[in-house]
Amino acid sequence: MAVEEGIKHLVQSLNVFYLLAGAVMILSMHAGFAFLEAGTVRRKNQVNALVKIIVDVAVATVAYYFIGYPLAHKVCFIKPASALVSDQGLELVRFFFLLMFAACISAIVSGGVAERMKFRPYVIAGFFLAGVIYPIFEALIWGERWSPAFQGWVEHIFGAPIHDFAGSMVVHGLGGIIALPAILLLGPRMGRYVRGKSKPIPVSNIPYLALGSWILIIGWFGFNVMSSQKLTDISGLVAVNSLMATAGGIIGGLLFGKNDPGFIHNGALAGLVAICAGSDIVNPVGAFVIGVVAAYIFIKFFVIFQERLKIDDVLGVVPLHGFNGIWGGIAAGIFGQKFLGGLGGVSLAAQIFGAVLMVVYALVAGFILYGSLKAVFGLRLSEEEEFNGADLSIHKITAYPEEKFRV
Amino acid sequence: MAVEEGIKHLVQSLNVFYLLAGAVMILSMHAGFAFLEAGTVRRKNQVNALVKIIVDVAVATVAYYFIGYPLAHKVCFIKPASALVSDQGLELVRFFFLLMFAACISAIVSGGVAERMKFRPYVIAGFFLAGVIYPIFEALIWGERWSPAFQGWVEHIFGAPIHDFAGSMVVHGLGGIIALPAILLLGPRMGRYVRGKSKPIPVSNIPYLALGSWILIIGWFGFNVMSSQKLTDISGLVAVNSLMATAGGIIGGLLFGKNDPGFIHNGALAGLVAICAGSDIVNPVGAFVIGVVAAYIFIKFFVIFQERLKIDDVLGVVPLHGFNGIWGGIAAGIFGQKFLGGLGGVSLAAQIFGAVLMVVYALVAGFILYGSLKAVFGLRLSEEEEFNGADLSIHKITAYPEEKFRV
Amino acid sequence: MAVEEGIKHLVQSLNVFYLLAGAVMILSMHAGFAFLEAGTVRRKNQVNALVKIIVDVAVATVAYYFIGYPLAHKVCFIKPASALVSDQGLELVRFFFLLMFAACISAIVSGGVAERMKFRPYVIAGFFLAGVIYPIFEALIWGERWSPAFQGWVEHIFGAPIHDFAGSMVVHGLGGIIALPAILLLGPRMGRYVRGKSKPIPVSNIPYLALGSWILIIGWFGFNVMSSQKLTDISGLVAVNSLMATAGGIIGGLLFGKNDPGFIHNGALAGLVAICAGSDIVNPVGAFVIGVVAAYIFIKFFVIFQERLKIDDVLGVVPLHGFNGIWGGIAAGIFGQKFLGGLGGVSLAAQIFGAVLMVVYALVAGFILYGSLKAVFGLRLSEEEEFNGADLSIHKITAYPEEKFRV
Repeated sequence: MAVEEGIKHLVQSLNVFYLLAGAVMILSMHAGFAFLEAGTVRRKNQVNALVKIIVDVAVATVAYYFIGYPLAHKVCFIKPASALVSDQGLELVRFFFLLMFAACISAIVSGGVAERMKFRPYVIAGFFLAGVIYPIFEALIWGERWSPAFQGWVEHIFGAPIHDFAGSMVVHGLGGIIALPAILLLGPRMGRYVRGKSKPIPVSNIPYLALGSWILIIGWFGFNVMSSQKLTDISGLVAVNSLMATAGGIIGGLLFGKNDPGFIHNGALAGLVAICAGSDIVNPVGAFVIGVVAAYIFIKFFVIFQERLKIDDVLGVVPLHGFNGIWGGIAAGIFGQKFLGGLGGVSLAAQIFGAVLMVVYALVAGFILYGSLKAVFGLRLSEEEEFNGADLSIHKITAYPEEKFRV
Repeated sequence: MAVEEGIKHLVQSLNVFYLLAGAVMILSMHAGFAFLEAGTVRRKNQVNALVKIIVDVAVATVAYYFIGYPLAHKVCFIKPASALVSDQGLELVRFFFLLMFAACISAIVSGGVAERMKFRPYVIAGFFLAGVIYPIFEALIWGERWSPAFQGWVEHIFGAPIHDFAGSMVVHGLGGIIALPAILLLGPRMGRYVRGKSKPIPVSNIPYLALGSWILIIGWFGFNVMSSQKLTDISGLVAVNSLMATAGGIIGGLLFGKNDPGFIHNGALAGLVAICAGSDIVNPVGAFVIGVVAAYIFIKFFVIFQERLKIDDVLGVVPLHGFNGIWGGIAAGIFGQKFLGGLGGVSLAAQIFGAVLMVVYALVAGFILYGSLKAVFGLRLSEEEEFNGADLSIHKITAYPEEKFRV
Repeated sequence: MAVEEGIKHLVQSLNVFYLLAGAVMILSMHAGFAFLEAGTVRRKNQVNALVKIIVDVAVATVAYYFIGYPLAHKVCFIKPASALVSDQGLELVRFFFLLMFAACISAIVSGGVAERMKFRPYVIAGFFLAGVIYPIFEALIWGERWSPAFQGWVEHIFGAPIHDFAGSMVVHGLGGIIALPAILLLGPRMGRYVRGKSKPIPVSNIPYLALGSWILIIGWFGFNVMSSQKLTDISGLVAVNSLMATAGGIIGGLLFGKNDPGFIHNGALAGLVAICAGSDIVNPVGAFVIGVVAAYIFIKFFVIFQERLKIDDVLGVVPLHGFNGIWGGIAAGIFGQKFLGGLGGVSLAAQIFGAVLMVVYALVAGFILYGSLKAVFGLRLSEEEEFNGADLSIHKITAYPEEKFRV
């Protein structure tokens, strides 16, 4: 009896440790988002990129603690600490872990609206993204509020619930597609398209971009593996599939991106976005293919957006997170099938249904959110502010303040 | 029987793993200290910042292994490896974990004395900080040598022992206050105050500063959570309180610091310094408030120091670590109370007593240490060395050596 | 019974978690290799450094999954996912962990051949290194294929098998020595030696170099500690020995390298290379000495190579990984002895035999590999390409693309 009690306590401690390891790993990914964007924007907007992401995390923490998590998971934390530690704080750590997903939404949008958006509406948007918009969709697919009924209904119709193990659709797809309305409402950066002609704006710092990508890659193993949420449900398959998709994305980025460092480092991320949904059920060989295709999707649509459609999505977050989120959801329905070496138990139709639902929800929510903010605050920096850079205009400092004294 | 033996062995293995995870996370924080300082000083002193911190870690390792840990914890490691592994090296890993706290003291001071201190006395100071000065105070509050008797006496007087779960006072407060004598004995950087007028010296690199801050934030979860030292004592409350204080510090930095990236990124650290002491007992809402106040304290006193008192504390380590260490100790005595949603069992009077004791000890120890070093070696670079920068003067190289060939 | 089943499952879950933590930590080391090289080469070759390392990881993943791991460990992964998860994916995670060692070989070579090698033969070499050359040697010392018979024979002759706990010889030595033929076949960088005179080429970025070193140091604790592969075999001695060797390497770098930041940060790595083999058996005091000597070896031979022998090993990987790999193997045979405070069970003769075997194998394999690639593709960029830099020549972009618009 005492032994069983002891083991129970040990397992609970381990689950706290395990989920916490995942939470901290995803927290570190936000540093990755920050440097990926800082390296991709011009020097005059690097500070703004860094500040946006760290403020996002803080704002999301408040919004999700008081509103978002209770909304999605039917748990309220406004109670004495003694009640919060009755389970060694396991529920709190679960909040921390899932918050880190919620906070990704705004970090994803950030890369799309970079270099020209006002700071105040950006921060307010982050509050609503983590506090309301994301949790509603989360509650439908993963949470405790509507998910049981909704997923039961999906399973009844399609033979299997919508399968999204670590958030290809719920997190990345949602974030990437929500960015589209924001980008369209903002318009392209000054000088990006001149009299209908595309004038590419160079990135500022490949090492920062690479650093951001590496931080994201490393943290992503927490994102995917710890999505099992219980230590005893850990699966090495999830880890190796994540690795194989990364490898596929890098090699795809290399081949389709012609040695370009931006495509190679983002290719890894494309593979990781796409593997989230099915990382627990596909075969590693399938994961590799998913990653290669994801890199192709990213590069192809990045070019189409920037050059043909003239949509100035600075970091390419719509293709990277949005389209690859969709691809990841659908790919789980394909490569998760037993005849392709997967574990089965997944329905392609349900996956497509989930993707469509996500896209519709994200577009509607995005237009309402950013449309309202545009009406109330305006979204865009003034021409002069944009010309001077967000760093000087908003933060009254440049990324390298000492240098102005050298000129 | 065999099962119980097996479980005992498993728990011991887990404790080694758990403490080691914490130790490595705090080790990584030293990279954070290095980049925070490298980004805040001028380019001509970046190399020196990086070298000081990594050398600190090495010197502290030797000092604490042979002197400090035996002093505070009554354990000597000068014995055959076979004796060291009888507990799977658990005691060794505990040394590693606690060493990482000891090594913080010099890393904290480093930011205050940056850009003008001689290298040799700096390194020697690090030896005494980790080998003697810190362990003596540690032994009083946490260690095995005097702590039982002393804390028993404190509890007898105040109704509760001094509560400092993860070192707001013992580590950060001590380090931050010890820095004050060093800064005063050194005097301000050349050109910082000209004929009584303040001439702010710009920082060199916001991205490095942000990188340093992020590395510190991530590692801090090891600093706080693993302070339970046993896996089965892990508490999710500690983690979420650390997160809430970070969020509070960021938002405080944003509001009180008027979008300044330095204040925002250091605000997060201010919150983390202040939450250490009470992270195991306060309510997450209290933790958030502690973080907001911490950012205010940091910014307010940073400006007072730099502008009114004309004390050139380059990174603001006295307010950041010192004053917020004090605030953290006292805040644990306030927000730890049951009527404020905390777990109770803490005495505000004992906390204030602890803070006073720490400040007195730190000032006395700091003046003796840096005063002696000043008498023996001198503390300050020559004017020419300071003008040329510590990098060229001490390390015979600049941070970007290739660039001198381009001029 | 149910309890025992539960514990068995728990232990398996923990082993997956434990090995995975190690694997991800070593994965992060590859970011360290990337920044160490990016900081050491000239600005015009930074992108190439970053790209080489991330592509290495991807290529090694494919090569080792399909060829290398089956070769060394007699396990084939071409089977349905259901078969791969029967052990919760423990074997897959073991693959991930050991792959990260395999991928180091090419990352080590990368630093030696930097700034002048063609990209295609570099990538192809990486495939053969991780897919064939490394696994053959791995299979002899560690793997399941030939190791039992071979190590049995070694033990029969020398009284103990070749002891290489975490790869001083198997990983670092092999990688460092294989780099020598590649470096010799390539020849020195343009302008490095002019009419027999050495003209040192300055490094570009000390902060990147320091960042790379820190990332490597942190990740190395996964490299060494998790080499036990089972959680219940974890040893705190391994961790503290790694730390002591790091400290020794830093202090050695400081003393023998005269405050030079490159020698100090690489000194830490030298110590870590040398401690791998014996980290489980030497005394921490011995580990410190091993680290100090390692820094001396690195600095001494770096200078001899660059100045006397005129071998242009850009990052000094032959002394850093090669010679210190040898030193680490031999040092395990010395400091592992009981009379020097070690755990014993190791034979100096066997260690020397292992080192000789490794050197011979590495030289032969390296000459065949890079000689063949030279014959088929050529190894070297054209003079014009090298002059313009690998970044522009291969990747059609510089590390700071925005800057060309400012000139």
